[in-house]
Amino acid sequence: MSIIQLSKRQMEILDIVKRNQPITSEHIADKVNLTRATLRPDLTILTMLGILEARPKVGYYYSGKSLISIMGSFIKNINIMDVKSVPVVVSEDTTIYDAIVTMFLEDTGNIYVQSKGFLSGIISRKDFIKITLGNQDIKSMPVAMIMTRMPNIIYCEADESIYDAAVKIIEHQVDSLPIVEKTQDEKGMERLKILGKISKTTITSAMVNIGNE
Amino acid sequence: MSIIQLSKRQMEILDIVKRNQPITSEHIADKVNLTRATLRPDLTILTMLGILEARPKVGYYYSGKSLISIMGSFIKNINIMDVKSVPVVVSEDTTIYDAIVTMFLEDTGNIYVQSKGFLSGIISRKDFIKITLGNQDIKSMPVAMIMTRMPNIIYCEADESIYDAAVKIIEHQVDSLPIVEKTQDEKGMERLKILGKISKTTITSAMVNIGNE
Repeated sequence: MSIIQLSKRQMEILDIVKRNQPITSEHIADKVNLTRATLRPDLTILTMLGILEARPKVGYYYSGKSLISIMGSFIKNINIMDVKSVPVVVSEDTTIYDAIVTMFLEDTGNIYVQSKGFLSGIISRKDFIKITLGNQDIKSMPVAMIMTRMPNIIYCEADESIYDAAVKIIEHQVDSLPIVEKTQDEKGMERLKILGKISKTTITSAMVNIGNE
Repeated sequence: MSIIQLSKRQMEILDIVKRNQPITSEHIADKVNLTRATLRPDLTILTMLGILEARPKVGYYYSGKSLISIMGSFIKNINIMDVKSVPVVVSEDTTIYDAIVTMFLEDTGNIYVQSKGFLSGIISRKDFIKITLGNQDIKSMPVAMIMTRMPNIIYCEADESIYDAAVKIIEHQVDSLPIVEKTQDEKGMERLKILGKISKTTITSAMVNIGNE
């Protein structure tokens, strides 16, 4: 991946340092036919971005780092609540057939299942393919028969970043994560309230939005 | 989204400028009890990053921009060939049933179809759900019966960025794009050679990798 948004002169300096390191600012100035004073802001930028390293009395080195480390911190600062989407939610007694129709109408990948106002399950397109292949009576069978239940549901909470979500999606090979708030039902049992959804689509959209800025 | 990887002092300067703009470097120096010379590198960084604007004889303004614009350029510089994955490819006479089994074994979202070495179609999980719902004889029916064909296949070419791919995926509401090279068959007809695949999963993985750096 290339280093970006550097000026032509900064790229030239970087190139000179890569080929001649360690090199003093005097020698860089000689090679580009400019004074040290003219070069100073460029060297400051390159050093502060961590792309060059300056060692006193020795000269400049190329650190091997790029703006990618800045990017890394950036995406760790994007909160999932700022990019979340609205999940498609059905009840446990919805038939598999109706859930499939809903999936097509809403064009969603995963459908979330709710019981008494709390998250109880998730159904994926793969679950639907498996059950329809089996020639079962999906017009009477409820989604509760095929959904993934707790504790097997991978979720995230409101304070997590888009990076945290991406890690969970890749690690657990799921298409989406419900964003939940932990709460208790009237019996004091821990329950999950659905706040939103973050999916591979949400993450891809976020990348589009970042690029559009 | 917050501005990141600025030092504490740079954040402090930014804060002062936001509340007092336009403000000269002398006045900023006063407020932080430092000399102008000490502040100069910080002001240089903030100005070169486009976060502050300096107007001669007036002072510094807050531009309203953040590192997000740098991010934008960054992802436009990540080439798809550096992040691509390997597609699962079947031939046109593969039965739908066998393609579904392949989809589960390889855990892939889209399956690409090839004829005489060239891309001829794409099948999605939604296509599989539709056909299995129809109770057709999927053990004898070939994938060629249900696949999306040219000119309806959305693809990208080797020189495109991860941002270009994300835009196409969101705009056309597809899960993946074949990366292709345009070529000709022996009759001189334009054909597409499959070089790889970029999907919402690839993009999510790229985000994980960027964060891990």
